[in-house]
Amino acid sequence: MHALAAELYPICRSITGNGVRQTLEHIRRRIPLDMHKVPTGTPVFDWTIPKEWNIRDAYVADCHGHRIIDFARSNLHVLNYSAPVRVNLSLDELKSHLFTIPEHPDWIPYRTSYYKEAWGFCLSHNQLLAMDGGPYEVHIDSSLEEGHLTYGEYHVPGETEDEVLISCHICHPSLANDNLSGITVAVFLAQYLSRLPLRYTYRFLFIPGTIGAITWLARNQERAQAIRHGLVLTCVGDAGGFTYKKSRRGNAEIDRAILQVLKFSGAAYQIEDFVPYGYDERQYCSPGFNLPVGCLMRSPWGRFPEYHTSADNLQFIQPRQLAGTLRVVIELVDVLENNKTYRNTMPYCEPQLGKRNLYRSTGGSDIGVDNLAKLWLLNLSDGQHTVLDIAERSGIPFGVLRDSVEALVNHQLLRE
Amino acid sequence: MHALAAELYPICRSITGNGVRQTLEHIRRRIPLDMHKVPTGTPVFDWTIPKEWNIRDAYVADCHGHRIIDFARSNLHVLNYSAPVRVNLSLDELKSHLFTIPEHPDWIPYRTSYYKEAWGFCLSHNQLLAMDGGPYEVHIDSSLEEGHLTYGEYHVPGETEDEVLISCHICHPSLANDNLSGITVAVFLAQYLSRLPLRYTYRFLFIPGTIGAITWLARNQERAQAIRHGLVLTCVGDAGGFTYKKSRRGNAEIDRAILQVLKFSGAAYQIEDFVPYGYDERQYCSPGFNLPVGCLMRSPWGRFPEYHTSADNLQFIQPRQLAGTLRVVIELVDVLENNKTYRNTMPYCEPQLGKRNLYRSTGGSDIGVDNLAKLWLLNLSDGQHTVLDIAERSGIPFGVLRDSVEALVNHQLLRE
Amino acid sequence: MHALAAELYPICRSITGNGVRQTLEHIRRRIPLDMHKVPTGTPVFDWTIPKEWNIRDAYVADCHGHRIIDFARSNLHVLNYSAPVRVNLSLDELKSHLFTIPEHPDWIPYRTSYYKEAWGFCLSHNQLLAMDGGPYEVHIDSSLEEGHLTYGEYHVPGETEDEVLISCHICHPSLANDNLSGITVAVFLAQYLSRLPLRYTYRFLFIPGTIGAITWLARNQERAQAIRHGLVLTCVGDAGGFTYKKSRRGNAEIDRAILQVLKFSGAAYQIEDFVPYGYDERQYCSPGFNLPVGCLMRSPWGRFPEYHTSADNLQFIQPRQLAGTLRVVIELVDVLENNKTYRNTMPYCEPQLGKRNLYRSTGGSDIGVDNLAKLWLLNLSDGQHTVLDIAERSGIPFGVLRDSVEALVNHQLLRE
Repeated sequence: MHALAAELYPICRSITGNGVRQTLEHIRRRIPLDMHKVPTGTPVFDWTIPKEWNIRDAYVADCHGHRIIDFARSNLHVLNYSAPVRVNLSLDELKSHLFTIPEHPDWIPYRTSYYKEAWGFCLSHNQLLAMDGGPYEVHIDSSLEEGHLTYGEYHVPGETEDEVLISCHICHPSLANDNLSGITVAVFLAQYLSRLPLRYTYRFLFIPGTIGAITWLARNQERAQAIRHGLVLTCVGDAGGFTYKKSRRGNAEIDRAILQVLKFSGAAYQIEDFVPYGYDERQYCSPGFNLPVGCLMRSPWGRFPEYHTSADNLQFIQPRQLAGTLRVVIELVDVLENNKTYRNTMPYCEPQLGKRNLYRSTGGSDIGVDNLAKLWLLNLSDGQHTVLDIAERSGIPFGVLRDSVEALVNHQLLRE
Repeated sequence: MHALAAELYPICRSITGNGVRQTLEHIRRRIPLDMHKVPTGTPVFDWTIPKEWNIRDAYVADCHGHRIIDFARSNLHVLNYSAPVRVNLSLDELKSHLFTIPEHPDWIPYRTSYYKEAWGFCLSHNQLLAMDGGPYEVHIDSSLEEGHLTYGEYHVPGETEDEVLISCHICHPSLANDNLSGITVAVFLAQYLSRLPLRYTYRFLFIPGTIGAITWLARNQERAQAIRHGLVLTCVGDAGGFTYKKSRRGNAEIDRAILQVLKFSGAAYQIEDFVPYGYDERQYCSPGFNLPVGCLMRSPWGRFPEYHTSADNLQFIQPRQLAGTLRVVIELVDVLENNKTYRNTMPYCEPQLGKRNLYRSTGGSDIGVDNLAKLWLLNLSDGQHTVLDIAERSGIPFGVLRDSVEALVNHQLLRE
Repeated sequence: MHALAAELYPICRSITGNGVRQTLEHIRRRIPLDMHKVPTGTPVFDWTIPKEWNIRDAYVADCHGHRIIDFARSNLHVLNYSAPVRVNLSLDELKSHLFTIPEHPDWIPYRTSYYKEAWGFCLSHNQLLAMDGGPYEVHIDSSLEEGHLTYGEYHVPGETEDEVLISCHICHPSLANDNLSGITVAVFLAQYLSRLPLRYTYRFLFIPGTIGAITWLARNQERAQAIRHGLVLTCVGDAGGFTYKKSRRGNAEIDRAILQVLKFSGAAYQIEDFVPYGYDERQYCSPGFNLPVGCLMRSPWGRFPEYHTSADNLQFIQPRQLAGTLRVVIELVDVLENNKTYRNTMPYCEPQLGKRNLYRSTGGSDIGVDNLAKLWLLNLSDGQHTVLDIAERSGIPFGVLRDSVEALVNHQLLRE
């Protein structure tokens, strides 16, 4: 996963343009992505597909022609979506176009101006302090032209048409946790699932933030109704514990399933209530859709200092951390796939498990979790409780119950 | 407000009689009160309007004719509703008619005997200790005769016939917190509301405790059904934090609205569950009515030492404290008036607030409460959530949401 | 109660056989038990009535004929339900048939093997350590033959056919807390109730664990539907506080009633959620029945060291402790019998309690719990609240409310 992140890291992405297309091409080498192009000017609900942005070069050079700020060194140096500009300015004139982080004088901030035409440079505060009064040659060789918004979609068919949505934004340039981490976990999850028999159909979206989700929803308003569970993946590569932000519904199956997984994951975690701010869950959870889509993070966006700075780099996301997230998401899928409702075929008193060798003697006065799992399943499988309900009530890990379900189904004691 | 309290303080009030009428006349100089007279003997539900009580003079004099206890000095000195009496008694014979507070030897207690004919004197414990064996001349020049129960009603019409009830008892003599404080806050609130355009109709009751509320309810059984929210105001002038006692329903809109106001008031407060004991909320919340009426206090009755003693005087209620209560009640009215249910007219994804200048840039990664308020309103305005629901779920003060509602309604993004 | 326990203590009970019949005969001298016999081989739901087990003698003797382990000294010495055996074995060969408790080297464990034919001996660990290499003469003079499962039933008729079930298992040999304690409390409760006018019909079951409950339910599937409340009594004689395990429903009336009783009992107590493991509540609460049956214990089974050992003897259950349990169960019955729903006949405002002498003056500003009980009953008796609901909401003990109900009913202020 980290190798894929490293491959994508240098590309200058934005919400439109060549960087997005290159990124999707890289992903396409691993999973057979469908590519979608939506022309500039297309209305999508209350929004309009913007002009396509591309950039070739950008710099601020001193009177000797030395590039003081150079896009070639970091694509964060340019205010993302900067309009083209070529001017000579004194430092004083330039200053309102320069962005730094005084508290972290070595870091370059990441800034954007998608929907209001502007230009600017981001630089470390120390760089700024080293600049003299000028004049400076300022050049941004970018274009804002009719073009397309591009996104990728991958769909892994399952037994039913009910869908699980996995969505991640691909619009950030050289930022690792936000959101190469989400992209790589999604790609590897997709590869993993493509080899499995599945109950649900899985839909993976690799889209620019906000406008991408709005575009997909506008073009798939009907299909969105088939989404039974969904997850936005972002900031999942840092060293922090897990943060899950609930769907707007607050008690959707995915909200409960992830809690079940995190509880037994051994990792630190926190569950946060839905707020209508954050990533694309904002759009999926808008009141017209109200989809059961939550957001899985490690350190939540905006609450780690490296957020939206050059310090969110490849060292910030470690292979072990990406793998830990993938493991949690795979376990989540396991819960969703196996969370069914069964009916005890012998609901009057307990069936005699001993004569079927379903009751393992433990030798002590402790019954053993396997036996207890069977008793709970038999007791609550009245057609009103899912396996997840039983996991929550009994405190027994979902995986133990799932194995016991299999044994009981094989002995015709449970029926779906 | 304190001036009005000072004006009313010397009057000897009871549940009937001239004191009540004088009090209502004073209020009438400020708000156009409707006066109601109900004759002695009138049945009101399970009760009967009692005889009217009036008192001219009362004293206990020693053998030299010196008035040891003198009604002229404090109207608390007479057991309220004392029958007339003229006897000579030794101290021993007199004692069962004397009431003191040994723990507060300088304070005169306040005692009543409305429904059981009796007579008596209240005095400071030090006064009692100074009395010799007697004999004493005892004289209460009072009358218990056919007459009327009097109460005042003021009705501020609003856009709808749905009513908000503000009720306060006017039967206590020279006691400031209980309940000149409630009377003055109600009068000033009424003046304030009478100058505003209102959604609700507001009904102010100035009534004797218990029998007054019962009388009003008996005569307005049908009209009471229009009461959507109600508040009993009592003990609202002392230096304590606020105490709100919930309505019997426990989760009425007024119960939630006041919590919303108190949470952001900066004052200490406590919320108490309904109990069928206290002030006139007992009657409004009787099971046949079950009106959504709570009770707002500062220090709750019976739990401050000055309660029902001469120490509950004008110094005990400070102008700043009365004003603080009025402010809270006005904010409560603001919540009730503006707690409506809206519908997002663009419920699919977020509308683009930026292009409407509805999104104020804050410069940092913090979104700002104004922007967040708009996102919450858009997200939850699905016709199922009132503004108060949204305030509770988002933690954003009601006032901020109310202002954002206005902006969003102006841009046709919300519709009632 | 302790005398009855002492009478039953020496009998070697099991799930079938003469010990069970002798035990029921002893109980029958106190209450007119109906005896039921079900033949070996009868199917009861998923189970089958097993062969009847009886035992005359059992020992392990050394080469000198000395009985090292002797059933005559304690009936715990034999693995309950041991098949007959007569062999000579070395200690090594014998060991897999011997059971001890190394942590409590003086105690004899209690072990069973009902549904898997086996034989064995239980002995103290010190006894085992004292044994040499053998050889030993091993003899169990038992029989496993066609016969019957026997249980006793006592039914105390009440005003309605709605039933309260009291169930206790009678299958354990010389163990006092588990479950002579439950048997004796049930017998004395039955005697007590048989002399009272009752609203409910009470059914007492004295049955072997698991198979007995399954048998009764299989033979009374229809009648079981009349059970409104039920209690399994077990381990109720030790010195611990009370433990109540809730019914599967979790909020059945009995679950709430026992909490009400325990809260005011002065004893320590804990409430535990239902788990589908434990005593016969497992069967009553199986999903096909889902009866409102909880389980009352003092120290819960398996969580006191004496559990299923020879240390669970007559000293372990003290008369005072048995009596304390009986008192709690009698108070529980009082709640169930009196938990009715009333309607205030004067629901508009408070009725005037004073004129009916229903309001006791307390002289202070404290209203007194009796008066408060009346106000709560009048306020909440709207046909939607039972007396238990009112007890829970008001915090007033059920007994105080019950007495006030009587007074209010006598004055026609409440009607059932």
